Amino acid sequence: MSILESLNWRYAAKKLNGSVVSDEKVEKIIEAARLAPTSSGLQPFEIFVVTNTALREKIKSVAYNQSQITDGSHLIVFAAWNNYTTDRINHYFDHYEQERDLPKGFSDGYKNGVTKQLTSLTEEQQFEHAARQVYIAFSFAMAEAAVLRVDASPMEGFVAAELDKLMRFEEKGLRSVLIMPLGYRDEENDWQANLKKVRKFPKDMIHYIK
Amino acid sequence: MSILESLNWRYAAKKLNGSVVSDEKVEKIIEAARLAPTSSGLQPFEIFVVTNTALREKIKSVAYNQSQITDGSHLIVFAAWNNYTTDRINHYFDHYEQERDLPKGFSDGYKNGVTKQLTSLTEEQQFEHAARQVYIAFSFAMAEAAVLRVDASPMEGFVAAELDKLMRFEEKGLRSVLIMPLGYRDEENDWQANLKKVRKFPKDMIHYIK
Repeated sequence: MSILESLNWRYAAKKLNGSVVSDEKVEKIIEAARLAPTSSGLQPFEIFVVTNTALREKIKSVAYNQSQITDGSHLIVFAAWNNYTTDRINHYFDHYEQERDLPKGFSDGYKNGVTKQLTSLTEEQQFEHAARQVYIAFSFAMAEAAVLRVDASPMEGFVAAELDKLMRFEEKGLRSVLIMPLGYRDEENDWQANLKKVRKFPKDMIHYIK
Repeated sequence: MSILESLNWRYAAKKLNGSVVSDEKVEKIIEAARLAPTSSGLQPFEIFVVTNTALREKIKSVAYNQSQITDGSHLIVFAAWNNYTTDRINHYFDHYEQERDLPKGFSDGYKNGVTKQLTSLTEEQQFEHAARQVYIAFSFAMAEAAVLRVDASPMEGFVAAELDKLMRFEEKGLRSVLIMPLGYRDEENDWQANLKKVRKFPKDMIHYIK
């Protein structure tokens, strides 16, 4: 097995045809994101699955009116922690110890190292560190979507401060990082649908050191 | 089809058994990275596949002596552009127009917008933007590896400035972002090999807005 055929099939669909992605497929795509590995296991983000039409219309208005946002059936919003706090890190390690039936405090040495390292960064660096983890979850979701033949367009193009307001992220201690509409490509009306995929040639980006 | 079973199978192996990953599988893993979508298609990174033992020993020494680096058969080093320059962006759009048989200059409007946006960022923001794209490629590679039942440990833990020196990245205009050993787990000697995977519960990270 390989996912290369699926990764070749996928592209960033600009036009979606309005068909609805089934709950079963959406749950698998989200589950792929949840299974993604993250730095020290912290999963420093939350994921919002928006089907509400009025909210998606508002989000579109702060995302350069890109039609995929409302022509898909779901919009996934990925938001990272705005910072790392002792509380947030403790909460994770409590969960970790419970899940592995370890005595409370078992991971204190490791936890204290992680806490010291992350909280010594500037707040912007902390957010950036968390945002990078979001990309792993986002990418796993995108790969699973491709395998399920669901179009999941990766989108960085929105006004983050405005999206944060719409989603009330500040009060949740979150900042938006990425959005991903889910739907089915409208091949007839998307001029990009059947164009050749453009990627760098391997010789221009892959180097073997033997 | 779904990759969830593979994503559940994978974990960040800490001990690898020394078995060699075949060239065919390594090429598929790298190809997944190459197929990853990136902001404006720029693919602002290069990928180094290191099998040279002496170099891997040196890399291990700047990566907290983590044994996977030399116990795997390959070490993939992902490095992002240190900045976005007009030259780099022009080079991509020339390639894009050639690949799609478009007249030279066809994309100038879009290209100029991208160039203006990216080069107006600080150099650190430019690198950070490029580094985020690396995470997509890295994650696609990790997903493909899991499907192929190859252990690919995601690693952020190394002294980037030291790795940059070993790899001579400064003269290439690159900065190291992530490394990924490829190999096969040593189940008998990795205490983490058969432990329960710990992830947040869906209720603590996934929200539906209907």
